[in-house]
Amino acid sequence: MLQYDPAERGFEGPVVACIQMEPHVGAKRDNVARSIELVESAAKNGASLVVLPELSNTGYVFADREEAFSLAEALPDGEAAQNFAEAAQRLGIHIVAGVAERAEERLYNSALFTGPSGHIGVYRKLHLWNNEHRFFEPGDHGIPVFDTPLGRIAIAICYDGWFPETYRLAALQGADIVCVPTNWVPMPAQPDDRPAMALTLTMAAAHSNGIAIACANRIGTERGQPFIGQSLIVGGDGWPVAGPASGDREEILYAAIDLKRTRAERTLNAFNHLLRDRRADVYDPMPGTGRSSS
Amino acid sequence: MLQYDPAERGFEGPVVACIQMEPHVGAKRDNVARSIELVESAAKNGASLVVLPELSNTGYVFADREEAFSLAEALPDGEAAQNFAEAAQRLGIHIVAGVAERAEERLYNSALFTGPSGHIGVYRKLHLWNNEHRFFEPGDHGIPVFDTPLGRIAIAICYDGWFPETYRLAALQGADIVCVPTNWVPMPAQPDDRPAMALTLTMAAAHSNGIAIACANRIGTERGQPFIGQSLIVGGDGWPVAGPASGDREEILYAAIDLKRTRAERTLNAFNHLLRDRRADVYDPMPGTGRSSS
Repeated sequence: MLQYDPAERGFEGPVVACIQMEPHVGAKRDNVARSIELVESAAKNGASLVVLPELSNTGYVFADREEAFSLAEALPDGEAAQNFAEAAQRLGIHIVAGVAERAEERLYNSALFTGPSGHIGVYRKLHLWNNEHRFFEPGDHGIPVFDTPLGRIAIAICYDGWFPETYRLAALQGADIVCVPTNWVPMPAQPDDRPAMALTLTMAAAHSNGIAIACANRIGTERGQPFIGQSLIVGGDGWPVAGPASGDREEILYAAIDLKRTRAERTLNAFNHLLRDRRADVYDPMPGTGRSSS
Repeated sequence: MLQYDPAERGFEGPVVACIQMEPHVGAKRDNVARSIELVESAAKNGASLVVLPELSNTGYVFADREEAFSLAEALPDGEAAQNFAEAAQRLGIHIVAGVAERAEERLYNSALFTGPSGHIGVYRKLHLWNNEHRFFEPGDHGIPVFDTPLGRIAIAICYDGWFPETYRLAALQGADIVCVPTNWVPMPAQPDDRPAMALTLTMAAAHSNGIAIACANRIGTERGQPFIGQSLIVGGDGWPVAGPASGDREEILYAAIDLKRTRAERTLNAFNHLLRDRRADVYDPMPGTGRSSS
């Protein structure tokens, strides 16, 4: 049984909740209402940081750009964003929610970060997957790390996690926890009898960076596209601390993240530290990027 | 059953063998003799690329730098290197073997790469683990990728695999296969009932780069230090194609790597390619490296 009161737990850090749910494309008001219900339930159970799936307000499989455009909203002033902000303030918690963002004529696959004191920031997905290219612009905010009372928090969305650079950039900027709103789908070579490769990527990233990672996936099938659930919270040592969740049921995962321990575990022995051992002299610049060092 | 004849297999690429064995510290001549026996066995079974563990000639747990120094040898002219080179030429195969290298007064934890036409190159471990810092210099050859008739091949050694940059640098330079001589040891947070985290790191690196990775670990306990076996060959989709091997037995793993398929699988759909989707504009330069772009 998790201890949700920091005083009882004996350590500082958030109780993270990942909400696995099923948004329905186009049903924006219903999706947000159901999200808020689940966020309230998570808060009641002691969560201080709640992660919702990618595009939790709009659904994922847009018929065309017009549909995506009509469902997207400005951040942080849109209707869904205001609802999430109101819930975060009322419940005294932090919320990371995947939302379709409209910035004038441009669309982004974004995540809103809002807390007890109001709006914190927006992350825009850097690596777009498949047909997302038809609707969205690639993210242009880099990988911001937000300094909060719960620790230093970064955000990544779904296919971002296929790029080790995503987590590395977060960790090098001091992130303790990366929140991952996601809409994981089946991958071509996935064997039926093994956990999704997404879980392996998440565990490896957590272990090699010494960061906790909280992934909230959706479930269900939308316009023929299945989603795989299996939401997961991984500790800074790379091992699951909650989940993987089922492949097909609405669920909330909970895990208490000990910030001090997460940071301490990056020191592996008298000689080794996961981040300081990087051979930046060899890596930088990565070849083929068309840049040279000054 | 693997088809070892390319004509029968219907595709081009090497049959990779990973030799899991137990070197004994100081017993250099015996270690090399046993290595050659196992290499001969692998070649007889159709292997064209054979990987031996880290420091396969000397053993791992040196009492002090003097012992390491006395066991290390010049590359490619040392005695073990000559034995491996002779075997590769006689058997018509490629061999990657972890060896302790002496370069004048400096020692490196290196891997020798030798083939049917003689010496190919040397890799020097970039990321030293724990007490290795007492004996070895950090590698200064970067991550070379060797163009061979079997494909483009890079080398990493043990703790190098904790750094996603290692595999990324190999992949960005066109590597198809990364050979990993290793001496994996138990990690602090490793649960008893799960496969080693090293396997997760290997699978994630293969999947996110679209490269095959062949890890040959040692077994046994040396001067109180246990090693965990579990040698593994992973395909470019990230899933094991051979192993993991046992934790404690001498074994040889075999897998045929289809180069064309490995390369083709990097294209995920009409929009996505694992390497071309990198956001170099965001990653480079990595923060905190003290370098700025020109």
